[in-house]
This record gives sequence, structure tokens and C-alpha cells, in this order.
Amino acid sequence: MPASNTLPARVEQVINMKVERVLHPFSPLTVDEITQSAALIKNEHPGVELNFKCITLREPEKEVMKEWLKAEEGSKPQIDRKAFAVYYIIRTPDVFETVINLTTEAVESKTKLGAGFHSCADGEEILEMERVCLADEGVQAEIAKLQLPEDTIIVADPWIYGSDGIDDERKQWQCYLYSRPKDNADSNHYANPIPISPVVDVATRKVIRIDRLPTGIDDTVGEIQPHKPILNEYTPEHQKLRTDLKPLNIIQPEGVSFRFSDNGEELEWQKWKFRVGFNHREGMVIYNVSYDGRDVFYRLSLSDMAIPYADPRKPYHRKQAFDLGDAGAGAMANNLKLGCDCLGTIAYLSFPIADDKGEPIVMENCICVHEQDAGIQFKHMNYRTGNSIVARMRELILQSIITVANYEYIFAFIFNTAGELSYEVKATGILSTAPLDPEIKECPNFGTIVHPGVLAAHHQHIFSLRIDPAIDGFGNKVIYEEAKAMDRDDPFNPFGTGYYITETKVESEGGFLESPENNRVFKIQNPKHRNPVNNKPVGFKIQAPPFQKLLAAPDSFHFKRAEFADKAVYVTKYQDWEYFAAGQYTNQSRGGHGIREWIKRETKFDTEEGDDVVVWVQFGINHIPRIEDFPVMPVETLRVHLKPVNFFDKNPALDLPPSQQSVNKSVLLNVEGNGCQKAQSGACCQ
Amino acid sequence: MPASNTLPARVEQVINMKVERVLHPFSPLTVDEITQSAALIKNEHPGVELNFKCITLREPEKEVMKEWLKAEEGSKPQIDRKAFAVYYIIRTPDVFETVINLTTEAVESKTKLGAGFHSCADGEEILEMERVCLADEGVQAEIAKLQLPEDTIIVADPWIYGSDGIDDERKQWQCYLYSRPKDNADSNHYANPIPISPVVDVATRKVIRIDRLPTGIDDTVGEIQPHKPILNEYTPEHQKLRTDLKPLNIIQPEGVSFRFSDNGEELEWQKWKFRVGFNHREGMVIYNVSYDGRDVFYRLSLSDMAIPYADPRKPYHRKQAFDLGDAGAGAMANNLKLGCDCLGTIAYLSFPIADDKGEPIVMENCICVHEQDAGIQFKHMNYRTGNSIVARMRELILQSIITVANYEYIFAFIFNTAGELSYEVKATGILSTAPLDPEIKECPNFGTIVHPGVLAAHHQHIFSLRIDPAIDGFGNKVIYEEAKAMDRDDPFNPFGTGYYITETKVESEGGFLESPENNRVFKIQNPKHRNPVNNKPVGFKIQAPPFQKLLAAPDSFHFKRAEFADKAVYVTKYQDWEYFAAGQYTNQSRGGHGIREWIKRETKFDTEEGDDVVVWVQFGINHIPRIEDFPVMPVETLRVHLKPVNFFDKNPALDLPPSQQSVNKSVLLNVEGNGCQKAQSGACCQ
Repeated sequence: MPASNTLPARVEQVINMKVERVLHPFSPLTVDEITQSAALIKNEHPGVELNFKCITLREPEKEVMKEWLKAEEGSKPQIDRKAFAVYYIIRTPDVFETVINLTTEAVESKTKLGAGFHSCADGEEILEMERVCLADEGVQAEIAKLQLPEDTIIVADPWIYGSDGIDDERKQWQCYLYSRPKDNADSNHYANPIPISPVVDVATRKVIRIDRLPTGIDDTVGEIQPHKPILNEYTPEHQKLRTDLKPLNIIQPEGVSFRFSDNGEELEWQKWKFRVGFNHREGMVIYNVSYDGRDVFYRLSLSDMAIPYADPRKPYHRKQAFDLGDAGAGAMANNLKLGCDCLGTIAYLSFPIADDKGEPIVMENCICVHEQDAGIQFKHMNYRTGNSIVARMRELILQSIITVANYEYIFAFIFNTAGELSYEVKATGILSTAPLDPEIKECPNFGTIVHPGVLAAHHQHIFSLRIDPAIDGFGNKVIYEEAKAMDRDDPFNPFGTGYYITETKVESEGGFLESPENNRVFKIQNPKHRNPVNNKPVGFKIQAPPFQKLLAAPDSFHFKRAEFADKAVYVTKYQDWEYFAAGQYTNQSRGGHGIREWIKRETKFDTEEGDDVVVWVQFGINHIPRIEDFPVMPVETLRVHLKPVNFFDKNPALDLPPSQQSVNKSVLLNVEGNGCQKAQSGACCQ
Repeated sequence: MPASNTLPARVEQVINMKVERVLHPFSPLTVDEITQSAALIKNEHPGVELNFKCITLREPEKEVMKEWLKAEEGSKPQIDRKAFAVYYIIRTPDVFETVINLTTEAVESKTKLGAGFHSCADGEEILEMERVCLADEGVQAEIAKLQLPEDTIIVADPWIYGSDGIDDERKQWQCYLYSRPKDNADSNHYANPIPISPVVDVATRKVIRIDRLPTGIDDTVGEIQPHKPILNEYTPEHQKLRTDLKPLNIIQPEGVSFRFSDNGEELEWQKWKFRVGFNHREGMVIYNVSYDGRDVFYRLSLSDMAIPYADPRKPYHRKQAFDLGDAGAGAMANNLKLGCDCLGTIAYLSFPIADDKGEPIVMENCICVHEQDAGIQFKHMNYRTGNSIVARMRELILQSIITVANYEYIFAFIFNTAGELSYEVKATGILSTAPLDPEIKECPNFGTIVHPGVLAAHHQHIFSLRIDPAIDGFGNKVIYEEAKAMDRDDPFNPFGTGYYITETKVESEGGFLESPENNRVFKIQNPKHRNPVNNKPVGFKIQAPPFQKLLAAPDSFHFKRAEFADKAVYVTKYQDWEYFAAGQYTNQSRGGHGIREWIKRETKFDTEEGDDVVVWVQFGINHIPRIEDFPVMPVETLRVHLKPVNFFDKNPALDLPPSQQSVNKSVLLNVEGNGCQKAQSGACCQ
């Protein structure tokens, strides 16, 4: 977790955030509001120190917001600003959640959570766990047995403990140990895992157990052997860098095509208009998306992700992370750097969150906004006249990158010039590794040897994207279409070539599988609005890559906890504050508080008038590590597309200016010099 | 079909192609060789006019090439240059295929094909069919019944006839008619289809039948009604163009990172090295792909594609195009224009093919070559030090765009900086439309109303990519891996969280389905070369999007002809000149000469030593038209990825120079002016 991001921000930035303005109901908490919330909460607990886990905007009820959105400027109903907070009484297991009314300066509710509810990590807690672990004499005695070379030191990565029902009621951390050279703080310690794994109790700040890791291909645990580190570094100073990659610059001579308003929280670009929010847990949130004045989505965010591991051996059997619920995509967001994370003309957004003391910190440059050329949008050449029309696709990208210990995720909301919206995840960073006896040369079937003496276990990454739609207004329905061969005996199909489309309505809350073999396509439609030309309900379709569902057994804790990971699409009836598919509290959870529970309501939908449906789209990868993924992995990319279907009355990109050399200023490469006499100089089509 | 591309090229270009050099055995035929081939063939047929369909390189036998590739420069065995040609005796059904030895100037073989074998279209033939159709008095009499407004003229699109076993032995064309304003040659006539469909016999150049098209939702045919055109144009002068999209330029101040040699047919870029070829049928062909001196692929090309339509009614029941076999991806290639089809610094390649007279024509700028930034290649941030490393992915793109009447395909071979190779297809252009009675407001279940009185029938696009591998040398095998949950009763899996990988060898020729629910991954491996670290066979995996297989009934002509469209992956034993998955002659074919026939050989593979396997990867989309796809459709993109798996001993992109602002020269957008005080200036991470 990025300690650097959790340092208190510089004062002037905090001041910089104190903007006098009327806050939009979806505006993230300001620095002042965070300070005010913490003060009100501290008043509730005189004389004790609190460990804050989050202080975040309590969004208004949807019915209230509907009224607010409908009302004219100036006559908007006043909505109280509220905060939602979770905190511990430090060094105790007592965790509370509370709702603060910032307008009335009152604590509206305060609940002490029951046993088995644990809140997320925070940067300070993680660093503290590392200190406790390495300072423990028992741990040091075990480490001594490794007979490490001089100038080698041990690094502890505290890992979310997980659940197995065995003495796991209290909040604990499983620490995985690695070695690195003392003189290289940026050494890739994951190349040298150590078979010692201390468990730290959070409340007492004590090592309560030292697990020994199996280092063979079975689950037996041997004696600790002397460890001879073999380095495998990813930093450039350890590489012989290639020198033949020429620079490529993206120049926007007239600046960008997008426009910010409302303190940077509102964006307009190519007929799209929407609000940007940011919170500790979800990171980026997109609100009130409209296209050319027509509503499309009410709220979009990544709900959660589950990363279960394949290695069945203790303590790896507990290894399943929920990086949003256990850590937070907002809290772990990188400070993005100009010229490193994006090309072109880039805008950066920064938002405040609360640190462990309840103090506001500014997450600097946690979202970057830029445009990208995305190749040809459409082309047609009339073969009779030889005239061709080409237009290029442009994308607007809102990107946020998170670091969760060893691993990185690059998240992006991508809007394009054809009325399409995509959510993209790129997985990179470093594999979580385990020690393996160096004499073992064959990979076990649950992992890959990525370095001598190092095993990277298979694992799944399963994401849940929450879509709260407003397709052409509120009141939507979900259907799926399939393509089927016409009956061979149907007299209408005498040659056996015909096929047709079937439509299935989602009549009530539930979970559904994809079915590529039937070309199953899920659509969100507004049943009250019909396309003027073909009379189809206006809608958007969901294109998500098929994926293997959670492999853990249905009675396992992995399965019970990853409540969204067994279906491609879940549809629920909207409930206020029902954001997190695996529940509000995922850390050491046992399930029963997320989407699999919610659908038991079996709420029926009104598919005639439309209803308040929420669509949860799951996607992911089963990561069978390649050695090419180490010491740092090339990105693996996943994209979920939301595309209009009979929402417009023709191609919405038709009014794009044609692609012309006078604007694009491409350069002809004369390859004669390389002995090639085939390059022809091309004049522009316009 | 691009008539403009089939006009004889300017003389100086033809001369320009006459390069004195030693030709590589994979060099496409030169202008001289095409001329020489035509002359030798014409000598065989004194006194008759020939209609040439193709004159193309007859590639050497693979065993011969293996010797040639092994041999030292200077001591290479001499390989005779050969041509393969197909031609008709004009105005007869007599079609011949022949092999010409250009070195010995001899006709090596000449075969008159049997009944039921028909060759492809050519630009001149298509224009002639259109002339014959529109000049026919019977057709004109039918058109008169439309009572078209003045200044409206009829356009005929000749369509590949297809097969249904009913009087379809001779080569015919099915012409679909449309109207357009006389004064706009670039009008989108597909918005005004006409229910009259003449059939033209190629040999006699006569209209032999005038089909009437059903215009309701069933297969009945009514009287021809007066037609009132409603225009739906795609050209910019008919749009109110958006004015707020700012220019975006890609600047490569030091030029490109790739290098051509051998007359532009050999390319080197970022450790990749390969040859580029081009022919009438496949268009781009990639040969002898190596990475850092290690062989990867022997030959890569798009083998064919099938586009069957869903509408079961006569004559639509025959509508299935094989755009490579019936027309040719080389013959239909666009002349790419600087600043229209690509951004950045672009090189263009041109290659000669033969026209219908057997004369060489230069397909100018039929391939463009350029680099593209592809976002982050890898990133890791050390949360303890706050130091992060980012490298950006670069791609090298070889692009070719084809126009087949109404439709466009954008094809690209894409190489990247992580040792990955992709094949991309983007579908765009104009839907093939059919007339519908204007009073019909509800779409039939086999098509979508995309304009008043216009139906776009559902159709599938199924592609077959031919991969002739040489992973770390010749002698490869194919396997597929699946991920499976460990047995719940396995004592090794006490908590039910474990899963493992199974491997299945492809032991003999056959076809296989994808299985995303099992995370099935096909890999091409070299069983004789093992990864030095983890002892796995070196290999590349295939990542292709799952797709719905051909929906037509197994006894239908659609199914019999689309021999590759029912499986995700076919594996065959290499046979010389076995390139085309639906057979050499797809036009009006009846099946039995393609891959479904070849696998009946059931050749066993040597999976220990490796064997000469060829892998055919199918992918596609079931296109259920949206009104947004008309009058010209936004691109739909498909990508097949070939990624190294345990081929290297670590991330091959590790030596990429880190992404730095000093090189990237990104620009910080100060959004204060837009009322946003949140943009922070970012210093570079380096």
C-alpha cells in the first residue's frame, strides 16, 4: 500500500481545497467536511484514541436525488450534506460505523458492529504490522536459521488474513517474508520468499503465531534451510536497456476537446456530460452520464474484486484478497506523473480522503483525464467513384492506477465518439510469490516456477462493475437476446440457412451466466421509449469477455465470501447504499452480506413501465502465471463495453469531421534509403 | 469491388517495380514475372481471349525452403521461381489452373477444372455484370413499374450467387438493385433497395432470370409498388459536422524505430524480424517471423472468411460470401492515404498483381506500416520508497483495408514490445440491405429495420486465421490447458479452495471448440526446447474471443461450404499449398474441398519430437444490426493474440526504457481557467 500517498499533504494544498462554493450533492467530502466529521465523531468517544478507516460522502437517497435533478436551477430542494465513517477504538476490536449530518452538525447514527465484522487496512496499520512482525524475537530466531548473507535484510508484506473458520474471529494479518539486499530499497524482494509467515493480532499488536510454509510440492513442512538469495530485479538500472525505440509524442496544438466545470467535478466532451467523484473505497465514481442531453447512466463504479489463489496448502488456503473492500481503490491510488502514465495533454484531478487519524489528506493526481486517438471510427469507399470517407475515433479516458502491495491495477472509464462507454482494467505489477525448494525443477499443477526457488500460484482476478442505469431516463429493464437456428422442419426455412433472435426478460432479481455459444447479449432498455424508425426499445448492450467463474467449492469460505464471482451478470432492485457486491465489510468476512444474499429477495421487476434495476457485470482472468510475468508483468487487458442499441436513429458518429491530412499532419516515410523502392507518396483523400 | 484499384497502373510505376535484384523465394511475383506468366499461358491458347483470375507466386515446397533457410548466405540452393494462375477462356465456362516455371520458362502443369468449380470475381467482371443487368429490357420493364421520381437512377450491386443445388451449376451473379439521385454518384444507395433482383449468366453475359424479392415479413412476393426514395447519406457534405473536436497529432521527432530491407519486403523492429508478402487472395502474408534471432512463425495469413445471412427467404437463402475466396483481400485492397487511414510517420508498401487481362497492375499503398503507443506496458510502485517504474508499450502495425462492395474490413498484424503478436479485424462499411414494405413497423426476428422501408438481415462474420508455426524452430505440437477445481474430497484440498491445470495433447488432425468456462487455452509448443528455469516446453498461447459457430443446419449448403466455421481451432498436418480453409475455389462451391475434408485424414502427430502442424484459428461476430450501424457502421473490433508462454526466461519487455517526460513531452493542462482548482502540476517520476 502506498505509504507515500498516505503522508499528510502539504498545507497549501489543503487550503487549496477549501473552495467556497455550493457543493453538488455528489461532491466528495471537502477537507473541511472531513475535519468536521472527525471532530463530531471524536466527541462521541472522549479520552480514547480512534483509528479511522474511512470518512466518506453519504450519498443522498436516490428518490431525493431524483427530485433534486428534476428541479430547476435556483429552486433545487436543499439536501443536507452527510458523511459515512468507519473507525476503531484503537488497540481494541471495537469497530463502529456512523452517519454524520454535516449540515445540522449531528451524529445521526452510530452502530458498534458485531463480532466477525472487520474493517479494511490502512497504510499506517500495514507499516505497523510490518514493524511488529520484524521486531518479534521469535520471528528473529526463525530468520536466523536462514543464515542469510551479510547485508541481506528481511522485508515483511502483511497480507489480508482471509477466513477458514479456525480461530479467525479477531482481526489478524498474515505476514509473508522476503529478503533483499540492504543497500537496495527498490530491490524486487518477491524473488526471494522465505518459508516463515508470522501472524499478527491487530488489537494487541503482537505476533500470535509463526506459520511455517510448505516448500515442496506437497503440504509437508521441512526444516528451515539456509537461504542463498538470487536477485531478479525489474528496475532499469539493472537492465541493459534497448536503445532503438524512438520517441513518440502526442501533440494537441489547439488543446483538448473536453471542458471542466464545477470545480473539476463536471466534464463535457463530444456530447457526453457527467460528474466525477472519488472515494476511499471505489476510487473513481461516474455520476449522471448523459449524451446529447439524454440520460444514460445514474452511477458507475467498480464495486469490488476478488483474487482467490489456487494453492490449497496452509496458510495459502486463506489467500483471497478483495482489494477494494480490504484496502480501497481510492486509498491506494497512485500519484500520477506527467509524461509517465499518459501521453498528450493531460489534466489531473486530486481529491481529499481521511487518513487513519481522521485528518484530511489530498490524493494528488489520483485521476488523469486525457484524449486518445483510437484508430478508424468508420470507413467506406465507393468502388464506382473511388471516393472514400474515413473518420477517426477519439476516446476520452479517465484513468486511475492503484498499487496494492505487490500488484498494480490500471482502471479507466473510456468514452468514445460513437456513443460508447467502456470500463477497462489492465493488470500489471509483481506476482505474489512463495518459496520452493531449489531442487524442485517441475512445476506443481497449481503454480508456475518463475525464478529459481520461487513459485507463483495460479489465481483468479474477478471484478464486479456496478451499473446503475438511467437509459433515456429512470425506469429501465434488463433483457438478454440469443441467436438460434430456425427449425430445420420450418417451411419458412426450406434450405436450413435461417436463424433468428429470441429475447428473455429478466423478470426478477437474480444472477445469470454468459453464453457465447448462443451469442447471448444482455441489454438495458427503457421500455417506455421506442426507436422512432424501428420501434425497438431504446437501450444499451453489455459486451463483456466471458470468464471462468470462481473455482473454489460452494461450501468453501472463498466461495461464500466472493458473492459475485459465480455469475456473469447480476441484476438487483436498487437499494440505497447497496454498492458492494461482496458486502460492506469484506476483511475476514464469511459471506452472507452481499449480492448472493440480496437476490434472495427475489423482487419482481416491472418490465412494462420499467423499474429501478442495478446491473452488476462480472469479468476477469484466471491467471496461470507465465515466466514472462516476472519480475514485473506485461499488462493483461480487459474491457467491458456499453454500446447503444437502437438508442439513436443512425450512427451517432456520422457528424465526425472526416479524417484529413491537413488536420492530422501525418508524415510520409521515404523508405528508399533503406533499399525499398516501393513506398508511394500518398495524397490525402480529402 | 474497387474498380479504381483495377485500372492499369501508370507506366512509370510499373517501370518503378522493375528492380534488378536476386529475388527471395517468398518475394511476390514482379511485374516482369506476371507479364512473362501471362505470355506463356496465352501461348497455350492461341486465338482465344483469356480472362485471368489470378497470377500469383507459387511458393516453394516447405521441405525445399527449410533447406534454403538453413543454408549459409552464398551457398543457398537455387530455387526456380514459379507462378500459379487461374483463368477462363472468355465467354465459356472453361476454367483452368496452371503452374508456370519462370526460371525454365515452361508450363509445368495445366488442368481444366471440372464442372462445379468456379473462380472468383474480378473488378471488370463485376462492372460488366452491372452493365448487362441494367441494359436488359426485361429488367428495365420491371424498373419502370417503380415509377421512380425523375433524376433517380438504378444502381446494381452484383452479388456472389452462392449455392442451393437448384440450377446453380453455371457461374451466375445475383444482382441487387437500389436507387440513387442521378446527381450524386456517392449517394448511399443502400438506403433505397428495390424488390427486383436479376440473375446474370457469366458465360453468355445474359440476364437469365429476374427474381422478385419478398418485401413483407414472410416469403410472399407482391406486386411492385411505386418507390419513393428516402435518402440517408453518410458523406460529410450531408451532415452538420461537429466543430469541437480538436486536432491530435502524432510526432516522431527522430523518425521510426523500424527498418526495411530487401526491397521493403523484410522488416526489423524491436527484436522482431520478418518478411512481408502480398497476393491477390490473402492480401498481406507474413513469413519467417523471428524474435531476437529465435524462430516463431513460418507463415501467417488470413485464410478466408464466411458471411452467411439469416434471412431464409429466396433468393437471400443463398447469401453467403467468402470475401477472400470469392473476391480476394489483395485484389480488393484500398489505396491507403496519408493522414486519413493512419496517424504518425507512415510507410506504404505497394505490390503488383495481375488484372483480368493478365497485365500487371500495382496495388499502390495497399499496406501501411507504422508504430503506435499502446499505453502502459508494465508498472510497479514500491509503496515503501514511493518509487515507481513505468514503461510504455509500443506496437508495430501492418495494416491493409479492403472494400468488398458495401463493406469494409480493416486488417492488421500487430507486433508489440512484450514479444506478443496480434491479428486484428475491424469491421465497418455499409450493411447489405433489403427492401421492406414501408408500412411494416416491427422488425422481423431475422433482421433489423435500419431506415424506413429498409431491412438489414442478421449475418455472421466468421474468420479463419492460418498459423504455420515454427516456435523455436520446426517441429511443434498443440495442446490445450484447462483449469479445474481440485476434488472436494482430496485430503490435499481440505478447505475446498484449490484448483489445478490439466493438459490435453492434440494427438491427430481435428477441430476443437473453445471452453471459457474451463479457461481452455490452446498453446503451440516446441517439445524439444524447455524453459531453462521451469522446464516447461517453450510455447505461444492463442487468445481468441469466443464466438457463436455457424448457425446454418449441417445439411445446408451454407454449412457444407463454410468448412471452418463450426470450430474454434482446427489443427492439420502441413501440406504444401493447403492455404484456404474453405478450399481453393469457394465461388458457388458445394464443400468437400476444405478443412473439414482434410481432417478426415486423421493424421497422427508426433508430440514427442514435434511435428509439422498448422493451426487454424476461427473467430467472428454474429452481427445483429443496430440502427447505429447505418448508414455506415462504427468499427466492431476483434483481436487474436499470440503470446509467449515460458518461451523467454523473464518479462521480455524488461529492457524497455522507462517512460520519462523528457522523452514523452506530455503537456499539463491547467484547468484553473475552467473553474477547477484541482489540477496539480506533476513532476516526472524519473
